[in-house]
Amino acid sequence: MDFLKEDERLDYLLAEDLRIIQSPSVFSFSLDAVLLARFVYVPIQKGNLIDLCSGNGVIPLFLSARTKGMITGVEIQERLFDMATRSIEYNHLQERLHMIHGDIKDMPKRLGYGKFDVVTCNPPYFPTPSSDEMNENEHLAIARHEILCTLEDAIQASSHLVKQGGKVAFVHRPGRLLDIVTLMRKYKLEPKKIQFVYPKQGKEANTLLIEATKDGNPDLKILPPLIVYNEGNEYTPEIKEILYGT
Amino acid sequence: MDFLKEDERLDYLLAEDLRIIQSPSVFSFSLDAVLLARFVYVPIQKGNLIDLCSGNGVIPLFLSARTKGMITGVEIQERLFDMATRSIEYNHLQERLHMIHGDIKDMPKRLGYGKFDVVTCNPPYFPTPSSDEMNENEHLAIARHEILCTLEDAIQASSHLVKQGGKVAFVHRPGRLLDIVTLMRKYKLEPKKIQFVYPKQGKEANTLLIEATKDGNPDLKILPPLIVYNEGNEYTPEIKEILYGT
Repeated sequence: MDFLKEDERLDYLLAEDLRIIQSPSVFSFSLDAVLLARFVYVPIQKGNLIDLCSGNGVIPLFLSARTKGMITGVEIQERLFDMATRSIEYNHLQERLHMIHGDIKDMPKRLGYGKFDVVTCNPPYFPTPSSDEMNENEHLAIARHEILCTLEDAIQASSHLVKQGGKVAFVHRPGRLLDIVTLMRKYKLEPKKIQFVYPKQGKEANTLLIEATKDGNPDLKILPPLIVYNEGNEYTPEIKEILYGT
Repeated sequence: MDFLKEDERLDYLLAEDLRIIQSPSVFSFSLDAVLLARFVYVPIQKGNLIDLCSGNGVIPLFLSARTKGMITGVEIQERLFDMATRSIEYNHLQERLHMIHGDIKDMPKRLGYGKFDVVTCNPPYFPTPSSDEMNENEHLAIARHEILCTLEDAIQASSHLVKQGGKVAFVHRPGRLLDIVTLMRKYKLEPKKIQFVYPKQGKEANTLLIEATKDGNPDLKILPPLIVYNEGNEYTPEIKEILYGT
């Protein structure tokens, strides 16, 4: 285990029989990322996929089990980029997955406009970091707040990277729904399917999954609700299936 | 029963112990209208409420059980206006409910700008009537298609009628979500709560309930999902409670 650094640990992505390097003091992936990786359309046999704001690479890793295409992850924090790269190597996926250490805003110029079939993004959720609500841990603060990447940055970069008719999928908080759909339409991404995730039956949604088509026609579907916990605070069968494959 | 005309019948609004005049060849209220009447915020002790595109008055009748305020209904089809008026009289509610026979577009000038605490609207759902999909029955066609009233007409009229901080609630199809939120924001109505209605567990939503506040701050909540039928094609307990009060 000498490829693990400091407080890192090697966790299972159970449903896909993969392993992922995590560190509680730097970044651990969330259920949201897993839900996005399962929600988004993917071409099965081939294609070019890119994940923005990749963190420790959880979405590229999950996507690798759904497609034989090429998957790129982009992460601006060197520490997370490094964790993701080592996880890809540990899983022997370096022929199909690779990470880029850089700013998503530079990617269209660097990788080309309209080259990707699919773009995914689990961006920082919190818009205006004030000093009291900002996390003192810089790694966590950058991952959670729009410090280095605003929602508009992420949607604009996605629109530039995706090809016409390609898919762009985001996960975010429901409170940002109106901002997301307004920005998507501004950048020619037409929202086509939305799924709301509710922590429990009878509770308000706390997560939003949305997929748009570049230059698509308006035709929005609201997918069945996803409930995370049952009355006994255990994962529902649907979530267990997603997380553990059982 | 000589106050009933032609094929009209007197149906129960069971949950509220009210009666309503319906006619299958002219107009029958839908579950959507009932859900809107129960979804919208209402002031309990007093206030001015207005329902646009009232049809046979189902929403004003339902609202009368939730508030002691004054309720106005607006309906452009004389036949439906007449049915609604007779239903109000039958239920002895004419002191608090009254119907206006007219075009919603004329109401702000006629009734005043910013005079209402609450505006509700179950508008025609279908945007571009082509001759083959248009209902040959003129009453039903006008109720279902945007012939005399577009979505923008309804949202603009609502915005003009409601007071600052007042509520505007619509029911519509989920496919129009983006149009509705875009138009609402255009007319200074900030969406604050949305609820999706799903015909069955595991199915896409087929109805959207949305409430906005005039000049409100952005703060959108997605309420718990509402499921209409259980696996055995019977109403779920939640819907039974809404419809029958049991």
